[in-house]
Amino acid sequence: MTTTTTRTATPVAPSRGALTPLGLDEVRVTGGFWAHRQQVNAEASLAHIEHWMEREGWIGNFDAAAAGTLGPGRGGREFSDSEVYKLLEAMAWEIGRTGDDALEARFTAIVARVAAAQEPDGYLNTNFGRPGQPARYTDLEWGHELYCFGHLFQAAVARLRTRPDAQDGLVDVARRAADHVCAAFGPDGIGSVCGHAEIEPALVELGRATGERRYVEQAALFVERRGTGTLADIELGRAYYQDDVPVREATVLRGHAVRANYLAAGAVDVAVETDDDGLLAALTTQWENTVARRTYLTGGQGAHHTGEAFGDDFVLPPDRAYSETCAGVGSVMFSWRLLLAQGDPRYADLVERTLFNVVATSPSHAGTAFYYTNTLHQRRPGTVPADDVASPRASSSLRAPWFAVSCCPPNVARTLASLAALVATRDDDGVQLHQYVPAQVRTALADGTRVELDVETRYPSDGVVRVRVANDVDREWTLTLRVPGWAAGATLAAPGEEARTVAPGSVGVTRRFAAGDVVELRLPLVPRVTVPDPRIDAVRGCVAVERGPEVLALESVDLVAAGAAPGVDVADVRLDVDAGLREVDGRVVARVRLGAPEDRSWPYGGGQDVLDGGALDVPLVAYHDWANRGPSTMRVWLPV
Amino acid sequence: MTTTTTRTATPVAPSRGALTPLGLDEVRVTGGFWAHRQQVNAEASLAHIEHWMEREGWIGNFDAAAAGTLGPGRGGREFSDSEVYKLLEAMAWEIGRTGDDALEARFTAIVARVAAAQEPDGYLNTNFGRPGQPARYTDLEWGHELYCFGHLFQAAVARLRTRPDAQDGLVDVARRAADHVCAAFGPDGIGSVCGHAEIEPALVELGRATGERRYVEQAALFVERRGTGTLADIELGRAYYQDDVPVREATVLRGHAVRANYLAAGAVDVAVETDDDGLLAALTTQWENTVARRTYLTGGQGAHHTGEAFGDDFVLPPDRAYSETCAGVGSVMFSWRLLLAQGDPRYADLVERTLFNVVATSPSHAGTAFYYTNTLHQRRPGTVPADDVASPRASSSLRAPWFAVSCCPPNVARTLASLAALVATRDDDGVQLHQYVPAQVRTALADGTRVELDVETRYPSDGVVRVRVANDVDREWTLTLRVPGWAAGATLAAPGEEARTVAPGSVGVTRRFAAGDVVELRLPLVPRVTVPDPRIDAVRGCVAVERGPEVLALESVDLVAAGAAPGVDVADVRLDVDAGLREVDGRVVARVRLGAPEDRSWPYGGGQDVLDGGALDVPLVAYHDWANRGPSTMRVWLPV
Repeated sequence: MTTTTTRTATPVAPSRGALTPLGLDEVRVTGGFWAHRQQVNAEASLAHIEHWMEREGWIGNFDAAAAGTLGPGRGGREFSDSEVYKLLEAMAWEIGRTGDDALEARFTAIVARVAAAQEPDGYLNTNFGRPGQPARYTDLEWGHELYCFGHLFQAAVARLRTRPDAQDGLVDVARRAADHVCAAFGPDGIGSVCGHAEIEPALVELGRATGERRYVEQAALFVERRGTGTLADIELGRAYYQDDVPVREATVLRGHAVRANYLAAGAVDVAVETDDDGLLAALTTQWENTVARRTYLTGGQGAHHTGEAFGDDFVLPPDRAYSETCAGVGSVMFSWRLLLAQGDPRYADLVERTLFNVVATSPSHAGTAFYYTNTLHQRRPGTVPADDVASPRASSSLRAPWFAVSCCPPNVARTLASLAALVATRDDDGVQLHQYVPAQVRTALADGTRVELDVETRYPSDGVVRVRVANDVDREWTLTLRVPGWAAGATLAAPGEEARTVAPGSVGVTRRFAAGDVVELRLPLVPRVTVPDPRIDAVRGCVAVERGPEVLALESVDLVAAGAAPGVDVADVRLDVDAGLREVDGRVVARVRLGAPEDRSWPYGGGQDVLDGGALDVPLVAYHDWANRGPSTMRVWLPV
Repeated sequence: MTTTTTRTATPVAPSRGALTPLGLDEVRVTGGFWAHRQQVNAEASLAHIEHWMEREGWIGNFDAAAAGTLGPGRGGREFSDSEVYKLLEAMAWEIGRTGDDALEARFTAIVARVAAAQEPDGYLNTNFGRPGQPARYTDLEWGHELYCFGHLFQAAVARLRTRPDAQDGLVDVARRAADHVCAAFGPDGIGSVCGHAEIEPALVELGRATGERRYVEQAALFVERRGTGTLADIELGRAYYQDDVPVREATVLRGHAVRANYLAAGAVDVAVETDDDGLLAALTTQWENTVARRTYLTGGQGAHHTGEAFGDDFVLPPDRAYSETCAGVGSVMFSWRLLLAQGDPRYADLVERTLFNVVATSPSHAGTAFYYTNTLHQRRPGTVPADDVASPRASSSLRAPWFAVSCCPPNVARTLASLAALVATRDDDGVQLHQYVPAQVRTALADGTRVELDVETRYPSDGVVRVRVANDVDREWTLTLRVPGWAAGATLAAPGEEARTVAPGSVGVTRRFAAGDVVELRLPLVPRVTVPDPRIDAVRGCVAVERGPEVLALESVDLVAAGAAPGVDVADVRLDVDAGLREVDGRVVARVRLGAPEDRSWPYGGGQDVLDGGALDVPLVAYHDWANRGPSTMRVWLPV
């Protein structure tokens, strides 16, 4: 088969599949929760990230490489080139979204500096191959060379699909690099893979965007090699980089959570482009087992700091949850690809959960500080990181402006800039809405039928979603709406009909729609108490509170504001489930009982008194909002 | 003040303190639990360890250093010299204990190879200073040079105190090295410390053993420098190597658990030898807070794999507990020194708990495989490590013959070989028994009064401890017995008296004892259910079972033997506390209810059925005995 050249303005545009993505030119987010975050991303985060990358010398490395002055002791980690490429990708989507001329100029300037560093044979990496540097491809385990190429390719795809006629040269740089990779790692080349998956989805997408089938075939080769032990057996074990079991034989994600998700995303791409149903089935099983047994309530993935890795089944400690922001981005990538391939709304459920509770949690309100890890239980208030120092990546008591390993900020930026691509899809029969944001959808079905929709909602503050059809259509088509898994009791009103209850999953309305027709979905946004599977040992005897797609948390600043005695902390709180949950001024209020156990010289034995500190009504905070009001402790799982 | 030269055959011999240690020549362990482990250590472990150190080239590094053939790419980690020194220390104590001539020959041969590698100025390390190697003291954070010296000194102390007239030269090697350290790191030298504490207690002890006050002063200098930020601020933070807060200002142990305990032990030594009561008080507080908030039920310390480090207060996850064997050894070192300084039996309580449940857990029954980490919850049975391959240190599903980082096996070996030194002490008024083992005690009080005791007991199988006085003494003296903290209801019968109840702590019997007098302590070894402090989130809703000093565990091999259906695992068990605990054939039997939760696609939400799998009576296993019957799962904390 051949690969169709797809120039839809979206990060993922498969040749086949149950659903076809819509581009940023077809879906415009017009307001609400995500539009605000996109605005902060555009106005603050992109410049903040660019500033730090200049300051740390990560962009400057390309200048030095071009000037021939790079050698040992270059600044930045071995993968810092990739951060620059992620920034370029974020900028490209943002330019595609808004047409920002000033940003276009900044983008073009950085591209020129990157391009100048490319070597004649297409190789491009500021950390390898020069006198005093390690030779190319001598450290596939940790060198990240192919990983960096992957992010270069994704940036180029973003550019090609939003500004196909641009003259900046980024796409040419990427094609030359991809040709080099195919030559170096093809069937007769180096028979191994990169320690950090990423080039797999990137090569497929570059192939989709350029029509170069060789790129897809090279990605397939990387996927097949993975798990055959071509990388060294490091102390963390080959599972760390998924080189323990072939992709098509694995049953669950394991090892480094970002690597695992990027690989899975790329393997879905390969399966789709090569009609490999066996591989796709294996990845579906991996997704199911990972979601059922290795995913936090927030959608976060990665239970251990060591190896930034998945734990065993049901090992999901809330304190020291790693839940790396980038693993959340990777999970969205994996789920989104399965959704396009198979159409099952459960994938969009996880995308929504992860967007609201991982991706949206990372940046501060101002967009200039980030979480790298996303703990579900903060035991000590910590201190505000200095705004002029890069932090250790896993400290995370409060958001930090930058990290020595700073993969997460540009990953959030590219996700937010391209977020409209996750909102809706089409198939031959109609349009599917997966995420509820105020939006304009303007697209055409395969037969040319125009479909124009305006989505009005205050979700997730409010559960009413109105989809107004904006054009008359001269045929029947189906509007499909996702009913989230948590939304038992949701109702749907089709034009001219009474509202009816609809079950979680998805619901379609098939009509010869007329302009002005309104389909109204009402999602019950009452706060709910969530009980964990008893096999999750770390949260036995605890519950969480959720409201719609948002996980809520108890933050110590709210305890203090509610009148708790000085020193009372989230450690001293038990949720009074019988008292129920109320909503006051838009916040969910819970009743908690306070009481610190008496201190003892040895913390085991029984018979310990817990002092009665009385009860208190305290508002909960959306998890993504926590730690925006100064140092605080926090917990999602509350003992009962 | 001056430092008295002390040649008591014991690892720790302070110049002052509440209690005076007895040497291996004064206390002989004659049978029982620990004598068996000492025998296995002598007959199997020492040769096993020596074999692996030869095989891995760690001893051979000294030969290559002497021959001038060492350069870059030397085998073994940067601290492998120290493992050889710990083996020498273990051998020295074993020779002192048994006078084994064959072992003496092996010991002397290794010493000769080590001595040949020492440089003219006293420096000795196979990893630094040669062409192609890093220069001396250029990597204090990770180089472990002073750490290695510390273990060399402790080996020399063991030799000097057990064979003071030996001609092997080890003590001279150590003295030259210590003189070099004092010159290089003295008041006018390098103003920093080693990234891994160890030289601190070692220098003090070498000073005590040789009478060289300078060594004590150098140790005091190292203790004072620690915590002042002379080491780099690494990604793990300076707390990793306790360089975050000055020792006398710290309130709890933190960071790497072995480093923290070694430092604390050395700081106690410094405080004692310099009459520094402020420092000693700070260390007492650190011990108290660490025991009350950061110690596992087993006595194990170190909650996190990352940084092999203590967690925050009450962060004690049973799965992935790090609880490194060496941290247990370090905790015994710290507690023992406080016991000698202050006499409080609580320190001996922790020593006992840690010896039975950490140190005794590490080696296999055969003494040729070891745990590096000591988890309290094994979720997957794992596989038996190959007997000819060094394992990653933290894999620990089953004991492994050797590790790439193999600090723990020789640390266990030196502890077992010198274990008699932990059994008893004396003061001006009498003798104190801290650990209950069948033993002969033959010592003299400060005024020359001979005291001879024979201890008869089957502890911990049985709670009866009979102390028989073996000589007539012409003055009153006091026999003091420790009553463990868990032993409520213990009774003591003094000669000619009725048994009376004695409270946990210690109890003294003062008499003009005659040969044949028997003091009988009866400790209630009934199994007990232990409830954790509610602030230990990770074990909420669980209890453990203990019997005497032993922590018990549920192992899946026992579930299977008791008739559980295939596939039933420790994950599916809840303890029926109301059914009580029975003892059958010397094993504690518990009733458990079986039942696996139904599998779901998303593990949060409530309303989940737990299948009723019925009840089962199952014997528990002593935690130190687990994983000696093939691959198994295991848990100490059982849901109720």
